[in-house]
Amino acid sequence: MSENLYDVANNLERALRESDDFKNLKRLYDEVNADESASKMFENFRNIQLNLQQKQMQGQEITQEEIDQAQKSVQLVQQHELISQLMAAEQRLSMVVTELNKIIMKPLEEMYGSM
Amino acid sequence: MSENLYDVANNLERALRESDDFKNLKRLYDEVNADESASKMFENFRNIQLNLQQKQMQGQEITQEEIDQAQKSVQLVQQHELISQLMAAEQRLSMVVTELNKIIMKPLEEMYGSM
Repeated sequence: MSENLYDVANNLERALRESDDFKNLKRLYDEVNADESASKMFENFRNIQLNLQQKQMQGQEITQEEIDQAQKSVQLVQQHELISQLMAAEQRLSMVVTELNKIIMKPLEEMYGSM
Repeated sequence: MSENLYDVANNLERALRESDDFKNLKRLYDEVNADESASKMFENFRNIQLNLQQKQMQGQEITQEEIDQAQKSVQLVQQHELISQLMAAEQRLSMVVTELNKIIMKPLEEMYGSM
């Protein structure tokens, strides 16, 4: 990779790290991690979501019990103020990252789009 | 998204577009597209690869006939000088993009890695 490309990518890394969206996410993430019951609840929620996603991607059947369990874990985290804020911040940052990728990949998209 | 982040992402888009790796890929891609038999061969190869990837991801069985067909299409494009060059250039750019993503995503990786 050319040195210039490397430098500009590092500029973007720094800009992302210093953005309000990232700083806000980091703060909420640290707050959740510092709270044992919140972090356990969040980790449990994450694991259930991941497990369901993997099953879906592999075309495996999802049982009614698993659906119930997932819905319960969603309700739990939604009622938790701090986790809800963290999840909203993750959603926002995910949109930023999607937007960044869309911008950077424009040259490739234009090229392959013309096929 | 903050204006600064947007500006820096646009800088990276420009740097990628002006990089030797991208310019080389674009040139080869245009050459293949300008050659009807090469572009048909390449498109056919692409479709076979994509189809196999989708089946694999969905956990569907791949028949011996499909494996044979895929191998034949790989051999065909490997013997084609221009397409071989294009595929090598794609491989290089794909590595560049992976590297860029790794750099940009460092703040998030550090954060989630600490969980």
